[in-house]
Amino acid sequence: MSDHNSRETLVRAASRLFRQKGYSGVGLTEILKEAGLPKGSLYYHFPGGKAELADAATRWAAAWLEGLLNRTFGAATRFEGGALATCEAIATAVASESHVPACPVLSILQAAPVEPALQATAQEVYGRWTDCLEAHAVRLGHPDPRAAAFVLHIKLQGAWVIAFAQQSNAPFAALAEDLRRSV
Amino acid sequence: MSDHNSRETLVRAASRLFRQKGYSGVGLTEILKEAGLPKGSLYYHFPGGKAELADAATRWAAAWLEGLLNRTFGAATRFEGGALATCEAIATAVASESHVPACPVLSILQAAPVEPALQATAQEVYGRWTDCLEAHAVRLGHPDPRAAAFVLHIKLQGAWVIAFAQQSNAPFAALAEDLRRSV
Repeated sequence: MSDHNSRETLVRAASRLFRQKGYSGVGLTEILKEAGLPKGSLYYHFPGGKAELADAATRWAAAWLEGLLNRTFGAATRFEGGALATCEAIATAVASESHVPACPVLSILQAAPVEPALQATAQEVYGRWTDCLEAHAVRLGHPDPRAAAFVLHIKLQGAWVIAFAQQSNAPFAALAEDLRRSV
Repeated sequence: MSDHNSRETLVRAASRLFRQKGYSGVGLTEILKEAGLPKGSLYYHFPGGKAELADAATRWAAAWLEGLLNRTFGAATRFEGGALATCEAIATAVASESHVPACPVLSILQAAPVEPALQATAQEVYGRWTDCLEAHAVRLGHPDPRAAAFVLHIKLQGAWVIAFAQQSNAPFAALAEDLRRSV
C-alpha cells in the first residue's frame, strides 16, 4: 500500500470508529486492526498520536459533509429547498449504515476538555459548516443569510444527536417534514 | 452529612463534572474530591460504580430540565410562546455558568457504546423530554402536538451541542430569534 493510501485507510477507519464509539471509547490497537495496518504506520503518519489522528479523521469527514452541502444546495433554486434536500441527504447517508454514526464533530467534542486542540478543531469545523450554508444563503438571495444558515445548522445538529442516541432516522424524518412546510 | 445529603452531593458533583468533561474524561477520584467525600461513600451509594453514578447524575439533571419545561410551558398560553420561553430559560441557565455545560444526556452519550445501560438512559431521557413537550402541546391545543414537540426538542438539542462546542450562548440567541418569528 502506498503512503498516501495507508494514511487514508487509517483516517477512514479512525473516523468510522470514533463516530460509533466516541474518541475515548476507541483505542489505537482497534483502529490499526480495523485499518489492517501495522503499528508503525500510525506514528509514521501521525507523530502526534491519537489526537492528531482524530483531528485528521474529523477534517476528512467534515470535508465529506461540506461536499454534500455543496451538492444539495448547488442544485437548489431557493435556500428552503436546499435545506430540505440537505436534511434528506444526511438522513439517507445515515440510514445506509448498520449503526447510525454521530456527526464527525460530536465524536471529538467530549474529548475537547482534555484535548484542547480538538476543541479548536470542533469549533473550526462547526464554523466552516455555518459559513458554507451562509454562502449558499447569500447566493440564493435569502434576506437574512447568516441567521438562516446558523438556524439550519442548529436544526441539523439537533436531529443528528438525537438520531445517534436513538439509533434511528426518525429525527431527520421529523425535521424534513418541518422543513417541507416552508419550501 | 446524612446519607441522603452525601448521595445528593455526589450526584451533583458528578453531573457538573460529566457535563463539563464528558463521561470518559472524569475519574472517580476527581468526583469524590469535588464532592468532598471519602471513597467509601461512592460504593456505599453506587455499588455499580461510575456507570451507576452517571445514570443517577443524568436522571437528576434531566429532572431539573423537566422542571424547567413545566415552568416555562406552564406560564404559556400558546405552544410557540412556551417554546420561546424555554429557549430563553435554557440560555439563561447555561450563561450563568463560567463553563457552558453540555446537555446532561450528551455527556453520557459518547460512553453509550461501551456502557449499554447508559445508552438506554439516554434514549429514555430524550424520550421523556419529547413526551413532556408533547403533553404541553396537547394542553395548549397545538394541531400537531407530536411533531411540534419533536421538532422543538431537535432545535434545543442542536443549539445546546453547538453552544457547548463554541462555549457560547450565541446558538440559543439565534434560535430564540427564530422562534420569536412564530410567536
